[in-house]
Amino acid sequence: MLELLSEHACFGGVQRFYRHDSREIGLPMRFSVFIPANLDNARLPALFYLAGLTCNEETFMIKAGAQRFAAEAGLILIAPDTSPRGANVEGESDSWDFGVGAGFYLDATKPEWDKHYRMQSYIHELRELVIAELPVNGARVGIFGHSMGGHGALTLALKNPQAFKSVSAFAPIAAPIKSPWGKKAFTGYLGDDQETWEQYDASVLMSRLQTPFPAGILIDQGLGDKFLAEQLYPEVFEAACRNASQPLELRQHPLYDHGYYFIATFIEDHIRFHAKNLA
Amino acid sequence: MLELLSEHACFGGVQRFYRHDSREIGLPMRFSVFIPANLDNARLPALFYLAGLTCNEETFMIKAGAQRFAAEAGLILIAPDTSPRGANVEGESDSWDFGVGAGFYLDATKPEWDKHYRMQSYIHELRELVIAELPVNGARVGIFGHSMGGHGALTLALKNPQAFKSVSAFAPIAAPIKSPWGKKAFTGYLGDDQETWEQYDASVLMSRLQTPFPAGILIDQGLGDKFLAEQLYPEVFEAACRNASQPLELRQHPLYDHGYYFIATFIEDHIRFHAKNLA
Repeated sequence: MLELLSEHACFGGVQRFYRHDSREIGLPMRFSVFIPANLDNARLPALFYLAGLTCNEETFMIKAGAQRFAAEAGLILIAPDTSPRGANVEGESDSWDFGVGAGFYLDATKPEWDKHYRMQSYIHELRELVIAELPVNGARVGIFGHSMGGHGALTLALKNPQAFKSVSAFAPIAAPIKSPWGKKAFTGYLGDDQETWEQYDASVLMSRLQTPFPAGILIDQGLGDKFLAEQLYPEVFEAACRNASQPLELRQHPLYDHGYYFIATFIEDHIRFHAKNLA
Repeated sequence: MLELLSEHACFGGVQRFYRHDSREIGLPMRFSVFIPANLDNARLPALFYLAGLTCNEETFMIKAGAQRFAAEAGLILIAPDTSPRGANVEGESDSWDFGVGAGFYLDATKPEWDKHYRMQSYIHELRELVIAELPVNGARVGIFGHSMGGHGALTLALKNPQAFKSVSAFAPIAAPIKSPWGKKAFTGYLGDDQETWEQYDASVLMSRLQTPFPAGILIDQGLGDKFLAEQLYPEVFEAACRNASQPLELRQHPLYDHGYYFIATFIEDHIRFHAKNLA
């Protein structure tokens, strides 16, 4: 099932990279896992991290410095790739914000894209896979992500709070229907019917929320982020949370930009937030 | 003098990337700096990090997670590139362990290489530059590095303990005269006269040591490091330290390999070691 590509000792645990044949994607997919020291072979809580545009399964594990705190908290980290690789859909490598590296955590419906670009269903497949194959406690799984991956984390958790019981994000695309990145992705993967887009918009989903996440949602946003005004819309998501009585901690940090130096600075708080929620 | 290429808020301070025209290299060179929050504009202690084969000025700042602890300790971090770029010496890109990305922190003497491949003198030039241009306290500068950069850190500090008052290393090439990497580099940059190699061998330099570093030297070595037996020789350096009455803490870690997951795991101890020595 899982092909171990590499393994590295890391903070008393192991950093692993795996490949597997994905049912939903119809192609081999790679993902990374950090497993902390686990001497009594317990089933541990786990936290999915969804990366942003152009990233892959390695980005977070190299750049965020999360393993230190996952090791302390006894939390497994899982980071999937951001799109199919090798689907060979015409045009999939023409731009950095659509196609390869930009799967947008949705299930495409447009012809040609609909065969392999099924990242929403893939994340659920991967969740089931790691519960089956790794010491993951399936009742204690959270999710977070960055930018496109923040969008993915919020929408996946809002649609499946039983699957993902804790959620946070760094600089998420929080209202993709309003965002040029979101519009391009939704048009390309889903077509022109904007009603079909709404199931992938965190702010729309929040406006329809039945049961708030009782522990709240944590979002960090840099105010020096050059994508903030045009692409991200945290204030739209914040208003939707207010209307839905969803507790939200939206922390706005002067000067910080959209990159991993920002994420590394605040990763400790996110790991602790999820560890507490999943305890 | 210094051209600022990019700047990122990071752990309350700033992560910067600079380019400058190097006198010693005769070409533009890049380096990175982390400057912690420094509200009273004090001159801060600084720590040079020399990276290993194939790395550049970005590797350490992205992968090691050092900024968190440098911010806590009030320590500036400086990471140069690992070789000239654009020297266009014939063959400089033919192999990953010689030429581009593999400057070995020495001053080449063989024709063609001797014009630009002057990384030893460059590190001293850069030290002077950051003291002149950044809030670095020139009396409180340390150095560390990884693999080829561990070799660089040890040899530079041993030859210039006034310039670099504190030294540590991760998996250094500790006796390069015995190492295939070292032999290839020394032959290529210095020629066949092995006597000229000795000034770049940390274990030889240690055997000639006049005044030990009173705070000791810290070395971390993974025992799962595939380069350990053939390339690194920490035991030769350890024996030289013993003979020279140089205190050495050589920590050997089962399972850990040669990569940055190993470095990230133990970076906190190195930053604290230098911060204490440079206080």
